[in-house]
Amino acid sequence: MPDMDDLDLSADAGLLNPAWAGRPVARATADRAFLQRMLEVEAAWVAVLAAHGLATDEQARQAEEACDPAGYDLVALARAAQGGGNPLIPALKALRERLPAGSTAVHMGATSQDVIDTALMAMAAEVGRDLGEDLRGLAAALAGLAREHRGTPMVARSLAQHSLPSTFGLRAANWLDAVGQAAQRLERATAALPVQWGGAAGTMASLAGHVDRAHRAGRLDESVTVFTLVEDLAARLGLSAPAGPWDTNRMAVTGVAAALADVAAACGKIANDVLLSSRIENGELGEPLAAGRGGSSAMPHKQNPVLSVLVHSAALSAPGMLAQVYTAAGAANDERPDGAWHAEWPALRQLLRVAGGAASLTRELAEGLRVNADRMAENLARTGPVLVSERLMAELAPAIDEASGDPGAGKAAIQGAVDDSLAGRGDFRALLREAVPDTVSDDRLDELLDPAGYTGEAGALVDRILAAHAELIDA
Amino acid sequence: MPDMDDLDLSADAGLLNPAWAGRPVARATADRAFLQRMLEVEAAWVAVLAAHGLATDEQARQAEEACDPAGYDLVALARAAQGGGNPLIPALKALRERLPAGSTAVHMGATSQDVIDTALMAMAAEVGRDLGEDLRGLAAALAGLAREHRGTPMVARSLAQHSLPSTFGLRAANWLDAVGQAAQRLERATAALPVQWGGAAGTMASLAGHVDRAHRAGRLDESVTVFTLVEDLAARLGLSAPAGPWDTNRMAVTGVAAALADVAAACGKIANDVLLSSRIENGELGEPLAAGRGGSSAMPHKQNPVLSVLVHSAALSAPGMLAQVYTAAGAANDERPDGAWHAEWPALRQLLRVAGGAASLTRELAEGLRVNADRMAENLARTGPVLVSERLMAELAPAIDEASGDPGAGKAAIQGAVDDSLAGRGDFRALLREAVPDTVSDDRLDELLDPAGYTGEAGALVDRILAAHAELIDA
Amino acid sequence: MPDMDDLDLSADAGLLNPAWAGRPVARATADRAFLQRMLEVEAAWVAVLAAHGLATDEQARQAEEACDPAGYDLVALARAAQGGGNPLIPALKALRERLPAGSTAVHMGATSQDVIDTALMAMAAEVGRDLGEDLRGLAAALAGLAREHRGTPMVARSLAQHSLPSTFGLRAANWLDAVGQAAQRLERATAALPVQWGGAAGTMASLAGHVDRAHRAGRLDESVTVFTLVEDLAARLGLSAPAGPWDTNRMAVTGVAAALADVAAACGKIANDVLLSSRIENGELGEPLAAGRGGSSAMPHKQNPVLSVLVHSAALSAPGMLAQVYTAAGAANDERPDGAWHAEWPALRQLLRVAGGAASLTRELAEGLRVNADRMAENLARTGPVLVSERLMAELAPAIDEASGDPGAGKAAIQGAVDDSLAGRGDFRALLREAVPDTVSDDRLDELLDPAGYTGEAGALVDRILAAHAELIDA
Amino acid sequence: MPDMDDLDLSADAGLLNPAWAGRPVARATADRAFLQRMLEVEAAWVAVLAAHGLATDEQARQAEEACDPAGYDLVALARAAQGGGNPLIPALKALRERLPAGSTAVHMGATSQDVIDTALMAMAAEVGRDLGEDLRGLAAALAGLAREHRGTPMVARSLAQHSLPSTFGLRAANWLDAVGQAAQRLERATAALPVQWGGAAGTMASLAGHVDRAHRAGRLDESVTVFTLVEDLAARLGLSAPAGPWDTNRMAVTGVAAALADVAAACGKIANDVLLSSRIENGELGEPLAAGRGGSSAMPHKQNPVLSVLVHSAALSAPGMLAQVYTAAGAANDERPDGAWHAEWPALRQLLRVAGGAASLTRELAEGLRVNADRMAENLARTGPVLVSERLMAELAPAIDEASGDPGAGKAAIQGAVDDSLAGRGDFRALLREAVPDTVSDDRLDELLDPAGYTGEAGALVDRILAAHAELIDA
Repeated sequence: MPDMDDLDLSADAGLLNPAWAGRPVARATADRAFLQRMLEVEAAWVAVLAAHGLATDEQARQAEEACDPAGYDLVALARAAQGGGNPLIPALKALRERLPAGSTAVHMGATSQDVIDTALMAMAAEVGRDLGEDLRGLAAALAGLAREHRGTPMVARSLAQHSLPSTFGLRAANWLDAVGQAAQRLERATAALPVQWGGAAGTMASLAGHVDRAHRAGRLDESVTVFTLVEDLAARLGLSAPAGPWDTNRMAVTGVAAALADVAAACGKIANDVLLSSRIENGELGEPLAAGRGGSSAMPHKQNPVLSVLVHSAALSAPGMLAQVYTAAGAANDERPDGAWHAEWPALRQLLRVAGGAASLTRELAEGLRVNADRMAENLARTGPVLVSERLMAELAPAIDEASGDPGAGKAAIQGAVDDSLAGRGDFRALLREAVPDTVSDDRLDELLDPAGYTGEAGALVDRILAAHAELIDA
Repeated sequence: MPDMDDLDLSADAGLLNPAWAGRPVARATADRAFLQRMLEVEAAWVAVLAAHGLATDEQARQAEEACDPAGYDLVALARAAQGGGNPLIPALKALRERLPAGSTAVHMGATSQDVIDTALMAMAAEVGRDLGEDLRGLAAALAGLAREHRGTPMVARSLAQHSLPSTFGLRAANWLDAVGQAAQRLERATAALPVQWGGAAGTMASLAGHVDRAHRAGRLDESVTVFTLVEDLAARLGLSAPAGPWDTNRMAVTGVAAALADVAAACGKIANDVLLSSRIENGELGEPLAAGRGGSSAMPHKQNPVLSVLVHSAALSAPGMLAQVYTAAGAANDERPDGAWHAEWPALRQLLRVAGGAASLTRELAEGLRVNADRMAENLARTGPVLVSERLMAELAPAIDEASGDPGAGKAAIQGAVDDSLAGRGDFRALLREAVPDTVSDDRLDELLDPAGYTGEAGALVDRILAAHAELIDA
Repeated sequence: MPDMDDLDLSADAGLLNPAWAGRPVARATADRAFLQRMLEVEAAWVAVLAAHGLATDEQARQAEEACDPAGYDLVALARAAQGGGNPLIPALKALRERLPAGSTAVHMGATSQDVIDTALMAMAAEVGRDLGEDLRGLAAALAGLAREHRGTPMVARSLAQHSLPSTFGLRAANWLDAVGQAAQRLERATAALPVQWGGAAGTMASLAGHVDRAHRAGRLDESVTVFTLVEDLAARLGLSAPAGPWDTNRMAVTGVAAALADVAAACGKIANDVLLSSRIENGELGEPLAAGRGGSSAMPHKQNPVLSVLVHSAALSAPGMLAQVYTAAGAANDERPDGAWHAEWPALRQLLRVAGGAASLTRELAEGLRVNADRMAENLARTGPVLVSERLMAELAPAIDEASGDPGAGKAAIQGAVDDSLAGRGDFRALLREAVPDTVSDDRLDELLDPAGYTGEAGALVDRILAAHAELIDA
Repeated sequence: MPDMDDLDLSADAGLLNPAWAGRPVARATADRAFLQRMLEVEAAWVAVLAAHGLATDEQARQAEEACDPAGYDLVALARAAQGGGNPLIPALKALRERLPAGSTAVHMGATSQDVIDTALMAMAAEVGRDLGEDLRGLAAALAGLAREHRGTPMVARSLAQHSLPSTFGLRAANWLDAVGQAAQRLERATAALPVQWGGAAGTMASLAGHVDRAHRAGRLDESVTVFTLVEDLAARLGLSAPAGPWDTNRMAVTGVAAALADVAAACGKIANDVLLSSRIENGELGEPLAAGRGGSSAMPHKQNPVLSVLVHSAALSAPGMLAQVYTAAGAANDERPDGAWHAEWPALRQLLRVAGGAASLTRELAEGLRVNADRMAENLARTGPVLVSERLMAELAPAIDEASGDPGAGKAAIQGAVDDSLAGRGDFRALLREAVPDTVSDDRLDELLDPAGYTGEAGALVDRILAAHAELIDA
């Protein structure tokens, strides 16, 4: 068993990362989990070899057993990783100590980068699946909000100011549109991540030698090549077999990283809106209430929008790590990078965590979001009828022009009413009534002045966006 | 005409950006070009309206004429953009001054974000096409190198040290693999970029009002909706029509940005390798020689690898701007962001430039790359036969074991020869000959000791990678 | 004269950068200005040489004249900069064409990096001075707000929710505290920026040869060394003379860059608060009104907080560029970096612009900020007396405990009143009055319930912060 | 005791961070260490209160005891931190459970941000001290190298090519110059980090109430104010007392972060050079040999420069995290940020680790660096005498001019010799001898041709840089 005191004194349990600590992604990306991934790769490889007669079933069984991650000392491995610059070297040493002396099948033809990169891809693929599940749940919740509030009037805001009437359904649909696109990108980026299997120089030379000797000795069917073996390994691990090793071509990694940052950004937009809308002065939205969350012992009146706070922090965190992944990709050199590769691991993992936490928290947020249609109506009414002056110009100016015989009279009259109203020189409706000829009825005036009646294609847009993401929502 | 003195005193011509100044992308992304894009959007919109009878042909013609970007004062526009926070507002004002008074068709139902976002997408799409052309040229050149040097031996290096023999063809194929993947991503990200057309609040309310009045007045076919108009606009501009406005959902932008950063990273890897290989101590590669490039008047012996230097600088530059684009995406709020949108423009444009410059320079680099196979052979020989000790262990240890009857003897003997040779206690081949039984012939020994004979699947990998990117190369 | 058509078609005039276009920093950092800096360095160097008899006064005069930046073709220089990877090489060529043939004093003993780095430092120093002026103005305006509103009650908010009463004066003082610290750092970082003067390899070998020959020939006083000359150059340019060349030690550059990012962050905080406070639902603050700014023709009711929007965009932009500067610094190698140096220039310049624009805009914002104390009072009253429940617990619980003889009764009673009030089961003051013994007078109760009376040390903190930045404010 | 199984399954022990795992900084920044910092702040505060009679000595003793971090369950705390968005809330709850019921002194007048920020500063201050120690050791080692190799000739390289002769001593001095400046900045940034102590709204209201009641009750000397208490707290924790709370003014944090990134960049430059110089083709430098480091079992000939690889990875990692810290600082709002604060913690900690690891590893690297002066000489000779053509032009052209009576003859003749030599048309010295008149002796020619004689002020620069950092080196 590991030296627990050491682990306790060296470890992060996520104390400074409430955006993902305690969420499933924390366990899926813990050091023990990554060790497990590396050992699974090693065991799967022996199993592949055994399936083709290049190792014995006994060796495969022994490898399987020795690859139980429970007995390895994480702290000692982490420390020893400085010796060779990566964690597989000491892990492999420890693994071999668990095997009978002279057991040669483990790691046959492989290099440490093969195992680490493949383990990273397996970890990313798993998180990608979990994240996909959360994004589907989130999308379904957002779709529900969009449908339910397809006709709930709400003021749209641009540059922090009221612009025109809209609906909360459209805002929820816009959230969905971004989440749906991010989900699609993540799916595309993680669905067929490649194994890495190139040997010490990316030429597969050692493995090719083994295969060649086995062919020559008649121990291996001629139709089985090194590429067959790699395909089998990929199949066992749920990954894909690439055209060639990608030790220095990090497009697979940047692709995952960018998609994770997309997830964080799409969730961040939602959190930003909830933070603004749950301000007491605004009051249009509220986070789901849950025991033990958001309360303040010192300030009993205070209900903090903690989910949004944490998601917002995640959105602020992803870009720096994304930059790190891309900096590393662009600094690769030779046949294995001399530091750029190493800079990529912690950044990729932190992105997995941050995006995983954000998706999980935002799902919870959306599933329990409290919508206050009354406050929406109240805020919409604040700017008053001038909010629809754009519409009034379009609908009423021609009638005034016609009545007065002056083609500029309509715009001037309506603008005059707006200006007088803003300056407190009278009630806008009364001023407007005065300016508009009697051919426009009172009812028509009231209709035109109703902000809720000027939401354009908001409903149709909700429908279009729901249709565009139907597959995700219904999944 | 613009106030040229002001322009001269305010402008960047790329003096501090040699990585892209003077390349075609510089013109495609200049302020004048962006202004042109905005005006093209405005003109195309009037043309769409005219095609459906919502504007007159005369209005369309007038708009077309007034949208010639030549006569606008860039400096004055840039300065005036501070008033409303964006450049379309003053540009539209200037455009309207070029039109007959009361001309209402221009910008009908649109908002400044519609025009700016659509213009950005049109600019990105154009750069995407140019970049695609350069990436195809680059890929073809790399494919040529991979084919020509499929069998040119070269040492592979990992962590800056010699690892095993490989070929230059495989390195070139690896370059191709990354470039091909980046090209595919860029193609995917820029092939169908969306127009933005939502009006002031993203509800299309004003446009819907126009359409509704035209329907009611019988001036417009009932089958024509706001969405028809947007589709027509998209078709005219070579863009796509999205499910809905994306004022605060910046996935289209982050997608382009990430693909551009992929291009910079893929090119950066090539530059890094050329920088290392064109060092006098290495000498394996040389940049194409061109008059006026890379020479030093003070140091006549010096030939600077300037293309690689600039591409390397581009790869170091992209990640920070990518972070800016993603930070902006995650900081979006409401129905139009209050600053995040504005932070996105310069970062996206600089990414277009940096990636465009990098692709153009790397293509030139690859098309004229000088390959020195002799120096590759010479460097490969430096480490000497110990470079293939991995192979010797695998191929010779069993014979020694058998001859000696001791199952560990082979490894020990070969390791001993390696150690003695590294310690200067004799020539490695002689030491090895001594250790290996006579059943292994001298010829076989020489064959096994030849580094060029231990390149594994390097040739097959070249073929596989060429096949994977056949479409791009042959395009 | 430059080819104006080319300039027009290649140039940025800041159309996509409203955060700084048109501000003084735009001109101070334009390409023409940077060219001027480079030429000033060349001219100053000949003047230094002439002062010591190493060049003739005629040469100094000719250099001075030829270094007028007006006649150089920026576009051609930018394009030619690709040849050697930097803009000084073609600029020097053009400069030499303006001099009599054989004129050898210009650039004597220097290398292109010497001139570019020194010009960058001179540009940074100038912007630093301008920025310092704006920061002093900004600090004075903030100090005025802090003093004027030392006692203006306002609710403090944490995690977007009301927390406790505070004053607007304290918020303004906190703004000042950050701005003052950033100003101090910028002053420290830019006050004594170093010249770079090391020659082609940083050894000053060529210059040392000139000096040595002059010493040997008796043309130069023995006490004058290469270091004397560099000190004289620094003095002429308002820079400092470093211990040695810093071609690959970019601490001077990272120091400036970090201080600029500090400025952007300090300004960003102010903008964030104004954006929140100028929302119609909040209404506590308003941007200064100015003709032509923030209005919307389509939405006459709308007054956009444009200054804050642009400053917010600046704060979102600085970190990516800062990352680029640091990435470049950490990627330096050899005696002149092979790309990292080049990646630094555009990032540093964009930081100068963004921070310069932010300081200038924020100063304007602070100098005209409209403070609505009524809305502050109104918002403060929203949460009602429960906002001071912390105080009530501390002040009233002991009296209740004593009266009831139960040491836990006080807390329970007050919490009960809070809960009942939040649940709508009565008016908080009435509930409280009921719970509190008569020994506490009605007046005392009202005093304790007044949020404005529970602002703690807000006033003293304002005074302390004003005192801490007295030097800056009074400067 | 914590649930060890949970800890084991959730924790990072640094497996993916070999750049700092196992170094002292790992323990100093572990979750347990941060918890300890928070608890120390709480205990110190009660001690301060007790010293002034605001708490009993018994309470102080109880707090001290309860603040032993050993018994807290890290995983449970990390998980519970999601409830309120920060780790202090559950930690304080757990602390209170360890105290007698009704114990009110702990956390009196404080808020969670006070404790977290102060604990972060205490952690940063400690790491700053450790880092300072490593930087002094590193500086001393670099000074030793600079002194020892003050006269060791080595070719200087610019843009990856040979430029002119220099010395290894000067390169080491340049390394020192950057390290020394970074050390000074770190010292300045961490020497007097502020405590944070403002209460829930940054007004110190609750604490002021306590003090006020104590004054009124005669339990506290009138001269003791809230500021006295904060000063005492700062003194106990080795921090400083600021003018006011800095909940939303993150200049203290950005200052530390920038200095840490400076350390990483300065170390990164050294690593980059060692990576290049330890390539087999270059061979000028070698990492210290240590058992278990850098070896490769598969490739016995290979000695990986692991220290440099890891330091290089650290330099590639710091900028992204620095961007995150600055993004957070610029996104602060209100009186406590709604997510920006939370995004800062993990980035700051990772910067502490990365810089701490880099300094520690680089110190080890410098202290054992193997310098191969023979390879330096050999590489210097590669370019041959043309390397000093700059010098020959300056020293010999006048003599040729004079002899021939043609003022351009000298330059032309020397350039001719260079060109002929580069073209393989003869030995450079012979060609030069032919071109130069007999007034220049053979000895003088040899002297001029010796690269080691053309290192300019390299020696003097070493001395100047050593003098500039004398205080650091001798500390």
